[in-house]
Amino acid sequence: MSDQRVIGVDLGGTKILAGVVDRAGNVYETLERPTVTTSQGALLDELASLVQELPQQGIGAVGFGVPARVDQKTGIALGAVNIPIRDIEFRGEMAKRLSLPVGIENDGNAAANAEFTLGAGRDVQGLVMLTLGTGVGGGVVIDGRLFRGWAELGHIVIVEDGEPCQGACSGRGHVEAYCSGRAADKVARRELGPNATAHDLVDARHPAVEAIGHHLGVAIGSLVNVFNPELVVIGGGFGVAAFDLLMPAARLAVLTEALAPGGQELAIEAASLGARAGLIGAALAAFEALG
Amino acid sequence: MSDQRVIGVDLGGTKILAGVVDRAGNVYETLERPTVTTSQGALLDELASLVQELPQQGIGAVGFGVPARVDQKTGIALGAVNIPIRDIEFRGEMAKRLSLPVGIENDGNAAANAEFTLGAGRDVQGLVMLTLGTGVGGGVVIDGRLFRGWAELGHIVIVEDGEPCQGACSGRGHVEAYCSGRAADKVARRELGPNATAHDLVDARHPAVEAIGHHLGVAIGSLVNVFNPELVVIGGGFGVAAFDLLMPAARLAVLTEALAPGGQELAIEAASLGARAGLIGAALAAFEALG
Repeated sequence: MSDQRVIGVDLGGTKILAGVVDRAGNVYETLERPTVTTSQGALLDELASLVQELPQQGIGAVGFGVPARVDQKTGIALGAVNIPIRDIEFRGEMAKRLSLPVGIENDGNAAANAEFTLGAGRDVQGLVMLTLGTGVGGGVVIDGRLFRGWAELGHIVIVEDGEPCQGACSGRGHVEAYCSGRAADKVARRELGPNATAHDLVDARHPAVEAIGHHLGVAIGSLVNVFNPELVVIGGGFGVAAFDLLMPAARLAVLTEALAPGGQELAIEAASLGARAGLIGAALAAFEALG
Repeated sequence: MSDQRVIGVDLGGTKILAGVVDRAGNVYETLERPTVTTSQGALLDELASLVQELPQQGIGAVGFGVPARVDQKTGIALGAVNIPIRDIEFRGEMAKRLSLPVGIENDGNAAANAEFTLGAGRDVQGLVMLTLGTGVGGGVVIDGRLFRGWAELGHIVIVEDGEPCQGACSGRGHVEAYCSGRAADKVARRELGPNATAHDLVDARHPAVEAIGHHLGVAIGSLVNVFNPELVVIGGGFGVAAFDLLMPAARLAVLTEALAPGGQELAIEAASLGARAGLIGAALAAFEALG
């Protein structure tokens, strides 16, 4: 039982990361591929073939972290902002294609659960996670339990009537429009030229990252006033890479916006599972499907 | 047991409402008085004397709804934004003065619990409540249970670096700075003259209330993306009085900001217990103290 392995799949807006994972969160063979965004059918085919390219021996279940709201009762993915998934029985559909038990979790919830179970949040009872990737995902653990509501923390408003979201979100001024890797790409192009990316911004330790940190801190301040977590974990590719540059401005904004003593007592850490938090969280969903 | 009565006390930023309440939420004799804000000691004395002026016969416990973060384990009120309460053992202190079991609840949580148990939310499993009074309070019911975190929903940011909060909150652009009765008073003075209040604004059906409704809808949109409740309940003196004027603009903003299908499916209702939701919620905390 303890050497049982599963396959976790972290479906992001830009890339898919799939890997073989054990109960302790050890990651064995992995595969990574750009996300197919041409159609829902093509994306599901790609996910199934990626899983099947990994070694199948001893695999008990497959878990998917998806950037969509998930109805756990039905396994339906209700609609994603950045990829072509909308109102499909994702869990049932993938179980049919793979002939294995399938678990499904919102990607932000999956990452939060992984950090809570095996990462930066192992010693706390409550945490909020924000994943700054293509979009911004989020997850919340309250009193030691993963909150299974929407927790689309990337879509709380920080700037009323501000920058529009992309994709299937009609909102304006959401965290995602300021703090995602894609938003940082946009800043990079403006500051460093048409071919620059968020990574160049980070490599150059560009001061524009501070402004993103301020936006992030405002969002964290709001979330402290709602959840009062002991810990906020910042994950996602951009979030982990830019963490040290984001924090000074973010911490200042948290102290301004959070009601005392929430801001002072709050720990903010980078995801200790790094960019693999989502993958490991998807694997945890697979183990849950195994029972 | 079923004719057991308690005293509930709704401690607001402007006034204190105390009353005798039974398990079904029926309110008998009530007393109302302006909130003493000179000192913490004077306020506690006033609360005790108000309780003792109500008929004591058959009273089993007293419950307080307070506009402060509450630590339920210790009964400590951790700090209020609009009244002089900070880090005191509120529950123990009042139990000593009253020689009765005492329950304590954050005021927004109390109102949310009342609406969930006996009011507009009787038939739902999840709701978010916003009370627009002197300040803005909030409460959340998830999967049929009152969320006992901070849920200081009046202090989520809607306008980054916007209007400052008053009192003990250093934040800027919080819901409270735009949607509270006190914020509406300020608008009233600007629009209708130095002696006008929020009530005059509502009586005149002034178009400035629409702008407040827009702010409120932006906040509700954020909260839908976090909690995806079936129902949002608007309470508090200003919220109930202005409800019909606030809603058109608020609903439009919710549709823009909330991820589909949350906004379309959301019901928004005025507190069906009206301005007594907080009082009845405080009484529920008293019944909980009774066991």
